[in-house]
Amino acid sequence: MFASSSLNLPSLGSSHPPSVPESKPKYPSPSAISLQTKAEAPYEPDSEPQAWKLKGSGSPQLKRWSRARALRSGRKLDRPGLRSSVAEVDRQIPVKKTADTEPNNATGSDGESDAAATAAKSIYMVSDGTGWTAEHSVNAALGQFEHCLVDRGCPVHTHMFSGIDDVERLMEIVKQAAKEGAMVAYTLADPSMAESARQACKLWGIPSTDILGPITEAIASHLGVSPSGLPRGAPGRSFPLSDDYFRRIEAIEFTIKQDDGALPQNLNKADIILAGVSRTGKTPLSIYLAQKGYKVANVPIVMGVELPKMLFQVDPEKVFGLTISPVVLQTIRRARAKSLGFTEEVRSNYSEMDYVREELEFARRVFAQNPVWPVIEVTGKAIEETSAVILRLYQDRKHRCSMPRISKRY
Amino acid sequence: MFASSSLNLPSLGSSHPPSVPESKPKYPSPSAISLQTKAEAPYEPDSEPQAWKLKGSGSPQLKRWSRARALRSGRKLDRPGLRSSVAEVDRQIPVKKTADTEPNNATGSDGESDAAATAAKSIYMVSDGTGWTAEHSVNAALGQFEHCLVDRGCPVHTHMFSGIDDVERLMEIVKQAAKEGAMVAYTLADPSMAESARQACKLWGIPSTDILGPITEAIASHLGVSPSGLPRGAPGRSFPLSDDYFRRIEAIEFTIKQDDGALPQNLNKADIILAGVSRTGKTPLSIYLAQKGYKVANVPIVMGVELPKMLFQVDPEKVFGLTISPVVLQTIRRARAKSLGFTEEVRSNYSEMDYVREELEFARRVFAQNPVWPVIEVTGKAIEETSAVILRLYQDRKHRCSMPRISKRY
Repeated sequence: MFASSSLNLPSLGSSHPPSVPESKPKYPSPSAISLQTKAEAPYEPDSEPQAWKLKGSGSPQLKRWSRARALRSGRKLDRPGLRSSVAEVDRQIPVKKTADTEPNNATGSDGESDAAATAAKSIYMVSDGTGWTAEHSVNAALGQFEHCLVDRGCPVHTHMFSGIDDVERLMEIVKQAAKEGAMVAYTLADPSMAESARQACKLWGIPSTDILGPITEAIASHLGVSPSGLPRGAPGRSFPLSDDYFRRIEAIEFTIKQDDGALPQNLNKADIILAGVSRTGKTPLSIYLAQKGYKVANVPIVMGVELPKMLFQVDPEKVFGLTISPVVLQTIRRARAKSLGFTEEVRSNYSEMDYVREELEFARRVFAQNPVWPVIEVTGKAIEETSAVILRLYQDRKHRCSMPRISKRY
Repeated sequence: MFASSSLNLPSLGSSHPPSVPESKPKYPSPSAISLQTKAEAPYEPDSEPQAWKLKGSGSPQLKRWSRARALRSGRKLDRPGLRSSVAEVDRQIPVKKTADTEPNNATGSDGESDAAATAAKSIYMVSDGTGWTAEHSVNAALGQFEHCLVDRGCPVHTHMFSGIDDVERLMEIVKQAAKEGAMVAYTLADPSMAESARQACKLWGIPSTDILGPITEAIASHLGVSPSGLPRGAPGRSFPLSDDYFRRIEAIEFTIKQDDGALPQNLNKADIILAGVSRTGKTPLSIYLAQKGYKVANVPIVMGVELPKMLFQVDPEKVFGLTISPVVLQTIRRARAKSLGFTEEVRSNYSEMDYVREELEFARRVFAQNPVWPVIEVTGKAIEETSAVILRLYQDRKHRCSMPRISKRY
């Protein structure tokens, strides 16, 4: 139902064993760079070395696609020749691991072999702030490669380096990226840091992307104001205790207190009320919306249990029903019952198909009696998707405009 | 303490009144486009029309900065000449509002006048998915303009159009952006939609940015695999009920149950435990970390109240202390006491400076007795920043690597 990857869930305890250089790399002098470029530059999209060929990679179609996209976007294709001859040799040598790497680095939680881990392609994210923007963008972009990630045909490991605010650490990371054959995606507010990253990646033949540069430039031109160049958290940046701050904290606290049908007398204080049977994702959805500043209450629909009267007394325009396919619901409930250690009896009542269907039918009748409530189908939707649907409807009903949108003032 | 803007909090009830075109615009035929380009193209960064000049805009420094950045990035500067002459005229005509706009559109919740609202610059975000990536990126980029946004010297309104999956609606939005003098930032997975947006914006003289295009291309080259071109939620995209999905839902539910010192017997089941006095942001921080898949418990430190024994029996490496400046804490507590309607007596005990200092000193002694617990200073930090610090330390302690990073497998 929900794509866990879509909310950037780290795989706890299954991190890629970090590879550590044998000696601490130094900030390269210009003369050193040209040597390193030859010795370490591993990236050549148009002549992918045999040792690194993965399922579906390097096809003529892809090369054409890749070249066409690159040309169309104005990005220069990597210079062939010089580096392609050394790339293969370099990539076949696994990065040496030092003793201080994670002890259980041979297998991840999903039992991947070390060989598979070595074959994974790395993406380095470097930020002078929290790195969450880089993580969010890379995660969204990786969504475009689900067809090859899901079955682990082409595993990807991301590594986030946050709070990088001096050029020496930046260069260490870039050099490590070169050793690992990683690509680098960065969000660096200080223009000189961004420029250093760009140049170092270029010199070492590492593919790199400045994630926020283009949008920041476009906004600067649009507003006619220069960006501050200060990373979030820099002393010059202000964090006023605004009304928004207090409103958001309040929304989160309200939503936690109202979880799972608690305090029905407060339903009228909620901005949004979610109603649905157990395991339609009411709680994570409520929390996601609360983080966006909405006070959310959720009310479970349980067959044979009367719904709180208040639910039918509040403005019906703020109530949203959730529904789901019975087959998917049963799968989720079975997993849930197992993880909670339900007894056999409770488990079958909760997750057996007849009961699941009856309960969904009970919910359907409740929704039919309240035709103003929109009913959202959550099967196959990520939490963010369901929340986007709800907020579009919420804003649309509130503002009654001809082009549905979610607007915000800065 | 926390920047509300940093978690994309919508200003509830203070949305910009949407401007609606008088008649439904049609998808432009090639012959129509050239006419519209002349009539409506409003954007010319190097000759910002006088009517739209805001504080600090259009300075020679900015122009140089902007031009240098543009040249360096390989982006073409907009062609001067043709459009600068019509832009001024066009921008001075306020967009006509139709009757179906928000009734109370003259003033926002902060009492801004209609004139100020008209002077605000708009940013349109267009997505074929949820739009959250565009929102996140634009919000992060706007962080670079806090110096002019905070005092409302240059107000910005963002408008998100999510779930835009056909070219007609896309063209309506682009045309509306041209009318409003907005810029357009888009995340469109389908290459033909992205290309349509790019071309239409170019033809109508609208500054536009493809937020995910460059990073998606870079990843495609890096992996040697073409992107799917399918928006999230498209029928061809899969959302498996993965272990990660269940782990994340469990983390959120666990964290809610453990909020504010509840169920101390479960502290050993938490991945991360936060300890701090009231109003150091334990709850929103816990929720933020839970959304990333960590089971979090938080334990309030209250002067004169004994802390749960379990706190000192768990692995001390997973406990984090939070501290804050007494002045900021007092400000937050006063606002909190007011919003909760505390009586005068309770209020002074809770928020008066002597008490605040004593309680922080009490917490400091607890932390000093548990030297393994890192103590995080949250003053002036956004929730994401504090969480980045905590997760860096958490991962670092777990993996003991020489280059602290947060790694993840796809």
